[in-house]
Amino acid sequence: MGSEVLEKFRPLFQPRSIAVIGATDNPFKLGYHALAAVTSTGYAGEVYPVNPHAEATIQGIKAYRSITELPHGIDLYVYAVPEVQVLSSVREAVERGGRAGVIFAGGFRETGEEGRRLQEELVRIADSGGMKLIGPNCIGVLNAKDGVNATFASPLAWFPKGDVSVVSQSGGMGNCILNELMDERVGIAKFVSIGNRANVEFADMVEYLAEDPDTAVICLFIEGLDRGDDFLRRAREAARKKPVIVYNRGFTESSSRTALSHTGSVASSEAVYRGAFAQAGLLQVESASEMACLAKALSMGGVPRGSGVFISTHTAGPVIAITDICERGGVRFPPLRPDIARAIQEFIPRHALADNPLDMFAFAWTDNSLYLRAADLALRQEDIHCAVAVFVTGAGAGPTFPAREYAEIGKKHGKPVFLCLVAPAILSQEMEDAQKAGVIAYNTPEKVGRALVNLKRLSGLRNS
Amino acid sequence: MGSEVLEKFRPLFQPRSIAVIGATDNPFKLGYHALAAVTSTGYAGEVYPVNPHAEATIQGIKAYRSITELPHGIDLYVYAVPEVQVLSSVREAVERGGRAGVIFAGGFRETGEEGRRLQEELVRIADSGGMKLIGPNCIGVLNAKDGVNATFASPLAWFPKGDVSVVSQSGGMGNCILNELMDERVGIAKFVSIGNRANVEFADMVEYLAEDPDTAVICLFIEGLDRGDDFLRRAREAARKKPVIVYNRGFTESSSRTALSHTGSVASSEAVYRGAFAQAGLLQVESASEMACLAKALSMGGVPRGSGVFISTHTAGPVIAITDICERGGVRFPPLRPDIARAIQEFIPRHALADNPLDMFAFAWTDNSLYLRAADLALRQEDIHCAVAVFVTGAGAGPTFPAREYAEIGKKHGKPVFLCLVAPAILSQEMEDAQKAGVIAYNTPEKVGRALVNLKRLSGLRNS
Repeated sequence: MGSEVLEKFRPLFQPRSIAVIGATDNPFKLGYHALAAVTSTGYAGEVYPVNPHAEATIQGIKAYRSITELPHGIDLYVYAVPEVQVLSSVREAVERGGRAGVIFAGGFRETGEEGRRLQEELVRIADSGGMKLIGPNCIGVLNAKDGVNATFASPLAWFPKGDVSVVSQSGGMGNCILNELMDERVGIAKFVSIGNRANVEFADMVEYLAEDPDTAVICLFIEGLDRGDDFLRRAREAARKKPVIVYNRGFTESSSRTALSHTGSVASSEAVYRGAFAQAGLLQVESASEMACLAKALSMGGVPRGSGVFISTHTAGPVIAITDICERGGVRFPPLRPDIARAIQEFIPRHALADNPLDMFAFAWTDNSLYLRAADLALRQEDIHCAVAVFVTGAGAGPTFPAREYAEIGKKHGKPVFLCLVAPAILSQEMEDAQKAGVIAYNTPEKVGRALVNLKRLSGLRNS
Repeated sequence: MGSEVLEKFRPLFQPRSIAVIGATDNPFKLGYHALAAVTSTGYAGEVYPVNPHAEATIQGIKAYRSITELPHGIDLYVYAVPEVQVLSSVREAVERGGRAGVIFAGGFRETGEEGRRLQEELVRIADSGGMKLIGPNCIGVLNAKDGVNATFASPLAWFPKGDVSVVSQSGGMGNCILNELMDERVGIAKFVSIGNRANVEFADMVEYLAEDPDTAVICLFIEGLDRGDDFLRRAREAARKKPVIVYNRGFTESSSRTALSHTGSVASSEAVYRGAFAQAGLLQVESASEMACLAKALSMGGVPRGSGVFISTHTAGPVIAITDICERGGVRFPPLRPDIARAIQEFIPRHALADNPLDMFAFAWTDNSLYLRAADLALRQEDIHCAVAVFVTGAGAGPTFPAREYAEIGKKHGKPVFLCLVAPAILSQEMEDAQKAGVIAYNTPEKVGRALVNLKRLSGLRNS
């Protein structure tokens, strides 16, 4: 079953050859961006630009005037053509043994009855040849590891590679999630904007990603579902294998209207979704940023074994924000065991109190070994399951946090360690370095607080 | 009254001379960073480094061995010395006619009874000479416009100048807010981390900033208040003159404990604060990011005259997130007037519906003049008070949003225009350019949604 679903979608995610229908040298056309995207990643397979008006080459690649001229059995067809040409060119591709397709154009199910019939006809044609379609009305598919960028966004090639995969109905919202992942310095494995879901459903993609060896965390943006029961059944299966995070929007009047006109789903009521998703073991979040922050911790193996957190700082304010968010979400800050408190009291500054949260004042900013000694002691305590350090970066003009040593202490105790590295998002090098060392780092206290609450929910799900 | 409070705090914010007590050439000491901060901005006044062990110069500046050697009447004393030296050096400064002081060290009121007595003595000494103290237990004061950086953080000199001012009890949380402002490309006027509030209270700073001609928006992070009634009375006065945004944390058990030990305030219950702040006309937010986003819109004059929003897009997902957040907050998306809908229907793509939200599909991405034509028509409608465009940036490899022309349309109709420019925070140049042109831009739909809801609350406050 696992290898079957992998093989079914291999031509989509790992195509040996890609045809770009509507490719052009004119940068004001979508077909220009589609071909530029395919070649943006150093893709190693064959690329076939197709345009009836083509000269010998398009963007320097040997061009073809029609699909009928193409070799048989091309894996993936990327359609950058207006909707009126979609049906006939999909039929031609099926006849030439095409295995998978990505269709950017709108004008199908989302536009009403006529569009719905058109989409049904499209599905009939594709199914007749076993061709899997992403879209219509989408921005396509990205497989970062294998250098497959079947979108019209060449900048997606810049995204760092990793093990977080994203499925979004909306291309725009998918983009929002990718951006947040980039800002959090989280690498991606696969990205799919599924749009109108002609013959590939959310559930298909979740099932695929649950088996995909390159994916460790699955992120979904859902505006609505056609066959909710089927999705929930298969998503529950996936969530048993890997964490599945869901960001769900479209509950209120205007937003439901947009969801309806755009991807042809009827957005259901919030409460129904929420209850069903929770039952299926999916992790629900409230924003793309929260999704990226949680995906980061999961990707780094940062699920604490319980809800007890030790937190240390040189500045109180951010800790107040973190603990305020955490305690509303059931995360606890256990008092230190007397022997551990005594040991910590010996090296912290005179006015500091060996407590949890532990405030070591500015002393710990200039002598940041205090963080290491405190964490090494606190993590011995049984009801403390992870450590958080709060540190305002000197941004190159002051001290930096000792991330490598902090990660070592976490490993020694077998407990995840987190860092709230207070810094602008645009100064993210130090955060990236900390993460490379194994510290789960965020640049704001609010992100840390929400991540800890979400991880606590996950440990609850696992233990239930 | 206005000029009186300005004159009272002139030596703090616009000092003609600054002494740095504890200045040193040793980069592992706070006094190194304090002097480096003072000289980081190209400060034009006199600078006097003081250290009993000094050679002829410190960091290349003529050094003094004691405060008694300094000229009389120095405006601002920056204390980068341990708490045991604070009282005697403040006494010396008062005797030399010092007008204002910034004290970084902890070890006062926040540490218990003995510290409280120490702080009372400190206040007595300072008050005897009319010296205003920021701190103890703070990171100091920044006046971006006049190049005064009386903190120990030289990177603060990098912050862009503007008209948003920030007062925070906690230096760390103040830093968080400054970082968010930097990420939002909002310039700052003044920053004060008031710490233990020896003889300068929150209310003093709010009163000062309400009169300060360089400040248009006041941002406060509050962990607790000593004399709540006095604060509320004076904050209400300030809020009549300028928008005052409040971010308040410290309601739950652990966070109250931290607030208590760190700055000596007793954090009160959430409900009491919230009700009183709302009554005083203060705008409450839930995170530093939300504060920065609201401050940006206010700084750019973006308060719509009502709650009706027109929104247009080339991609539905982000609009679904925006409208979902907005409608929970009472922001409306009025249906288009029939004549305006007809006029828009003429130029939008065949399958698009002239509605609000208006989805123009990928056509509007390649031909982004559609955004301009649609906004120019929709903003004629009386119950539409602002326009929002959603655009996924091509990040240099695709189209850019026509921000200058969009801003012109807003000006023509006298209504603010917003842009959700979907992009990673680290790619912020296009957002910055849009803002310079006069478009209020954010990089995520969630930020746009929250900003519109907050602005709606403000227009409600103004009309009440």
